[in-house]
Amino acid sequence: MHIDVLTLFPELVSSVFNHSILKKANDKAKYSYNLVNFRDYTENKHSKVDDYPYGGGAGMVLTPQPIFDAVDDLKEKQSTKPRVILMCPQGATYNQNKAEELAKEDHLVFICGHYEGYDERIREHLVTDEISIGDYVLTGGELGAMVVIDSVVRLLPEVLGNEDSAPKDSFSTGLLEHPHYTRPADFRGMKVPDVLLSGNHAKIEAWRRKESLKRTYERRKDLIDADLLSKNDLKIWEELKNNY
Amino acid sequence: MHIDVLTLFPELVSSVFNHSILKKANDKAKYSYNLVNFRDYTENKHSKVDDYPYGGGAGMVLTPQPIFDAVDDLKEKQSTKPRVILMCPQGATYNQNKAEELAKEDHLVFICGHYEGYDERIREHLVTDEISIGDYVLTGGELGAMVVIDSVVRLLPEVLGNEDSAPKDSFSTGLLEHPHYTRPADFRGMKVPDVLLSGNHAKIEAWRRKESLKRTYERRKDLIDADLLSKNDLKIWEELKNNY
Repeated sequence: MHIDVLTLFPELVSSVFNHSILKKANDKAKYSYNLVNFRDYTENKHSKVDDYPYGGGAGMVLTPQPIFDAVDDLKEKQSTKPRVILMCPQGATYNQNKAEELAKEDHLVFICGHYEGYDERIREHLVTDEISIGDYVLTGGELGAMVVIDSVVRLLPEVLGNEDSAPKDSFSTGLLEHPHYTRPADFRGMKVPDVLLSGNHAKIEAWRRKESLKRTYERRKDLIDADLLSKNDLKIWEELKNNY
Repeated sequence: MHIDVLTLFPELVSSVFNHSILKKANDKAKYSYNLVNFRDYTENKHSKVDDYPYGGGAGMVLTPQPIFDAVDDLKEKQSTKPRVILMCPQGATYNQNKAEELAKEDHLVFICGHYEGYDERIREHLVTDEISIGDYVLTGGELGAMVVIDSVVRLLPEVLGNEDSAPKDSFSTGLLEHPHYTRPADFRGMKVPDVLLSGNHAKIEAWRRKESLKRTYERRKDLIDADLLSKNDLKIWEELKNNY
């Protein structure tokens, strides 16, 4: 996979690529990336990337020319048909299904605005996906793009070693994780549940499954997928309903 | 406001603080921050921050000792009762209301894990808030913490100048933004709608409101708050219902 990020703040993005999984995966050639300051593509003499909105109003709007030209250039260099992703609050809310979908692509191009709006022609004629990472307002698209990139790269083949692999991902199974405990068994008087010290694996599994169902019931009923629940799970789910 | 970030990757977090709004607001003393590598608080001779889970299973679990001790230390230094925020997929889904709530606090402490789970005693006895930025899996809590911090800091008094202020925030008004256009009026044959060039402000406002309602109807019906809609808005909404 190749990833291009169009941004006016390449150094901000660069440091995220230089740490942890994104760095390791890049070092092992599991993906490549390229940061593009689209200011370099402006054709006006002051290298302006934005202008006042037609029809008036507050705020500036990113002009189409440098962004269209930058994306055209990237498409040509890679000779691919990339997914061109606009990070914006109006986009579809990002989730794990979308991460899995993007992880199958060969080429992703992210467009990150900062403060400004985007000229609508970018949205209509250039991008293939508009993504919002959640219902909150950020200063720019860069953090959102890095969130999407982190969640996609960790899904690429051979990127997560066993040592890194998180316990079962909540958003793939439809259940939130059960509680975890490690040493010491007693920390400042706060104790690990006896069952986890019992060595009885059947009991431990049953306790974990119940706690996982309980946590999901209490916090995120909306995640549950009844088709993935066993007969025993459904019995526990009914008990939870009666107890709350 | 003072912000502490507990992380094993302080350099990753640091670069985000060193750009754009977070840097400007810090330079103007609108908030202060401090990065804490909680590995520095370990009491074992190998500076280990994690250990195997009780009861078995894959993955490692962050031990309570260094994180409890680090937070105790930070509380003492600031002599405040901070909000202690755990970034995790099991947390409440972050949104703009939560950003506004956190922006009123004096002291925020973020705890960022990386790959590992958290010992449940951290969750039960130390943290005040568990936050998830969305339904997707990330490699660590750092990007999530930076998303929350960016969204909170931009709400602090005097942080956003007029030049930075985004057009109306979608998630405060319950409506997605209308389309924006800027120069040129004709770009590669793609034209700006005539109404925006008309100079008729009443017509422009009406067009924008309608486009905003239309976009919200098409993409995010769930955001709409009927109490914020005028009689005319409701008429447009009814038309949209009939046309789709």
